[in-house]
Amino acid sequence: MRALEEKILREGVVLPGHILKVGSFLNQQIDVDFLMQMGKEIARLYEGCGVTKILTIEASGIAIAFAAAGEMHIPLLFAKKSRSANVSDEVYSASIHSYTHGNDYQAVVAKEFLSPADTVLLVDDFLANGAALEGLREIAKQAGARVAGAAVAIEKGFQHGGDALREKGLRVESLAIIESMTEDRLTFRQQ
Amino acid sequence: MRALEEKILREGVVLPGHILKVGSFLNQQIDVDFLMQMGKEIARLYEGCGVTKILTIEASGIAIAFAAAGEMHIPLLFAKKSRSANVSDEVYSASIHSYTHGNDYQAVVAKEFLSPADTVLLVDDFLANGAALEGLREIAKQAGARVAGAAVAIEKGFQHGGDALREKGLRVESLAIIESMTEDRLTFRQQ
Repeated sequence: MRALEEKILREGVVLPGHILKVGSFLNQQIDVDFLMQMGKEIARLYEGCGVTKILTIEASGIAIAFAAAGEMHIPLLFAKKSRSANVSDEVYSASIHSYTHGNDYQAVVAKEFLSPADTVLLVDDFLANGAALEGLREIAKQAGARVAGAAVAIEKGFQHGGDALREKGLRVESLAIIESMTEDRLTFRQQ
Repeated sequence: MRALEEKILREGVVLPGHILKVGSFLNQQIDVDFLMQMGKEIARLYEGCGVTKILTIEASGIAIAFAAAGEMHIPLLFAKKSRSANVSDEVYSASIHSYTHGNDYQAVVAKEFLSPADTVLLVDDFLANGAALEGLREIAKQAGARVAGAAVAIEKGFQHGGDALREKGLRVESLAIIESMTEDRLTFRQQ
């Protein structure tokens, strides 16, 4: 999505450690009108795939997932993060490693909200190593739901989590894929 | 908002300890089309108030705040929760007590996103004791921003946090105010 690439170049700030700050429009502050455009593009990419529900993870995935769900007129479901390894029988859960915080957490979704009748689209703001999407896919699998694929705003292509998921057969659509990134220069993968 | 009251009566579940579960449309699973209607009502209530930015707090406030910001075509800003009492000079922060979890946390917003030029509308999903709105108001005050008021989806009127804020001069609009609540019966305040 060209408009997103241009916005990243204009507003993104690259920090040491392969950190891309896009707090001005995607993370802390959210450019709602722009996200609605991104939601429209996600809806277009998955049109006709029979998606019944969008599945994301709190907190920063909620906004882009809301935008996509709004365009597709389907419910949005978000996994909650729990530090406790003890989860009840009433939830589906997956253990996810956070490379940002260097720890593991449980992503949980109440069983009542996901069933074999669902076809889910996994949505998140960032895709780096792919751990969050793997966790969401695991939750959908526990529910017996079909997974149509994943849609993310920004993929860090140089961390290869997206490529690994594609090799495993998951359809992954990223609105922008960063191929390389330094404090001076940022290049995108041609799609 | 009559449609919200009806939805609470239809889908809400009251648990012991004055807990109202509305996970089917407002918390874990989000009825995006319905939230857009709520956003429209919030936009109507604050029309002409010169609001430049919506301020909420992660995670469950993001969806309703997104809906309102989408209707008002203004950016959404969300405070992040931090467990650390040490916050940097680059953020505004407020200490908030969580009655749900029995602990305190810091709500933080990067200084670059809020200034005296802003008029903010505080938005959240629930209002019980008012601690979260107090914290968001404190953050706006630190930034020198004007506060147009607050808008919440569901106020627990019997916990009186909303009334206390109104007595302190804050405009608080709640789309539904629960006056009393037991496992068998739920009544709303006339507005």
